[in-house]
Amino acid sequence: MHGVREEVALLATVTLCGVLLQAYFSWQVIIARRRYRVSPPATSGPPEFERVFRAQANCTEYFPLFLAILWVSGVFFHQGTAAACGLLYLGARYRYFHGYAASAQGRLGPLYFSARVLWLLIALAVLGLVSHFLPVSLKTPVLRKLQWLMTTR
Amino acid sequence: MHGVREEVALLATVTLCGVLLQAYFSWQVIIARRRYRVSPPATSGPPEFERVFRAQANCTEYFPLFLAILWVSGVFFHQGTAAACGLLYLGARYRYFHGYAASAQGRLGPLYFSARVLWLLIALAVLGLVSHFLPVSLKTPVLRKLQWLMTTR
Amino acid sequence: MHGVREEVALLATVTLCGVLLQAYFSWQVIIARRRYRVSPPATSGPPEFERVFRAQANCTEYFPLFLAILWVSGVFFHQGTAAACGLLYLGARYRYFHGYAASAQGRLGPLYFSARVLWLLIALAVLGLVSHFLPVSLKTPVLRKLQWLMTTR
Repeated sequence: MHGVREEVALLATVTLCGVLLQAYFSWQVIIARRRYRVSPPATSGPPEFERVFRAQANCTEYFPLFLAILWVSGVFFHQGTAAACGLLYLGARYRYFHGYAASAQGRLGPLYFSARVLWLLIALAVLGLVSHFLPVSLKTPVLRKLQWLMTTR
Repeated sequence: MHGVREEVALLATVTLCGVLLQAYFSWQVIIARRRYRVSPPATSGPPEFERVFRAQANCTEYFPLFLAILWVSGVFFHQGTAAACGLLYLGARYRYFHGYAASAQGRLGPLYFSARVLWLLIALAVLGLVSHFLPVSLKTPVLRKLQWLMTTR
Repeated sequence: MHGVREEVALLATVTLCGVLLQAYFSWQVIIARRRYRVSPPATSGPPEFERVFRAQANCTEYFPLFLAILWVSGVFFHQGTAAACGLLYLGARYRYFHGYAASAQGRLGPLYFSARVLWLLIALAVLGLVSHFLPVSLKTPVLRKLQWLMTTR
């Protein structure tokens, strides 16, 4: 188990940071509910409140996708690279949340950036899984063919 | 770690497929927002939009449950069986999404099917965990009793 | 893999209990939809329905956070402690759901309790990860300093 723990410790740390960030977003919704006097179970109110509410809902919606792809790419491609992408993603989500709280337009920049980071993690996961399933006997010829294509063109 | 990777590679592949399917659903909501002119943060609009929105919300809601039970049954019962059930579940969710987008009635068939697959995965997880915790000294008598019951009745 | 399975079996069991609890909440929403005649895709209706709907939505929203922190604290701090906290959390969520279904006020007690359990799990995860990353050469002096502080004050 110690070897396994070693190979997921960075992923676990990024996961923990993500949980703390989601706790922060939930707390911001509670503050917004008080400020704009929107008591549960209501979820509609002034646009300022609805933007904060939707920002948190969107981050929450993506959180399981993010964790799943972080761990698959971290375990099958490379832990450090996946963890670094994970931190970039969480930073983008922080800027997204505050951008959206300010204006619907303000969410777009960080949202597109966070989506690009997720696609990068997906690409790493695909690469990692393909190289895991590729039989060793195939790996060398495929890599040679790739090298040959890249040197002759 | 290599042995562990071997025993979860199919689960990781199904997880990746699930993330891609969820990304596809999110993209369909963006298209529906444009077609029916429902700009964020609004989530209500014509029934055609609301059905697409709720279809994605429902799939998103079940995604963490699905992943949790896929991995528990895959690790404690049998990886290949769990992964095959996982693919059936994702196929049912694809049909559910398009069925719901067409009509509220159209969601029911695939929804019931996906629920049945989830219950199957839950049953496999229970079996896997019970057989894990059952002490070896108990396993043999219990299995013999079961055999005896099945041959004499 | 067998050693790994041993070290996560309790976490997997609590995860399975959590999935069953979420299935129970979903079923309660279906019953409430029938009783108050709120057909999908609608999500608004009489306050009695909206409270049940929001109770389930809130539990669903926290479920991935709960699982993530349960597993990180269970793997890096101590499996049994994390699993026990996990059961406390699920019990609090059960009381939260029925409290909220009865009145908006009734959700508060169990909600605060469940939040306290989550913070405890977060603290255990932080401790576990810090002690994992702390180099062995540092661990002994730090522990001695702590002992010295606790015996002299």
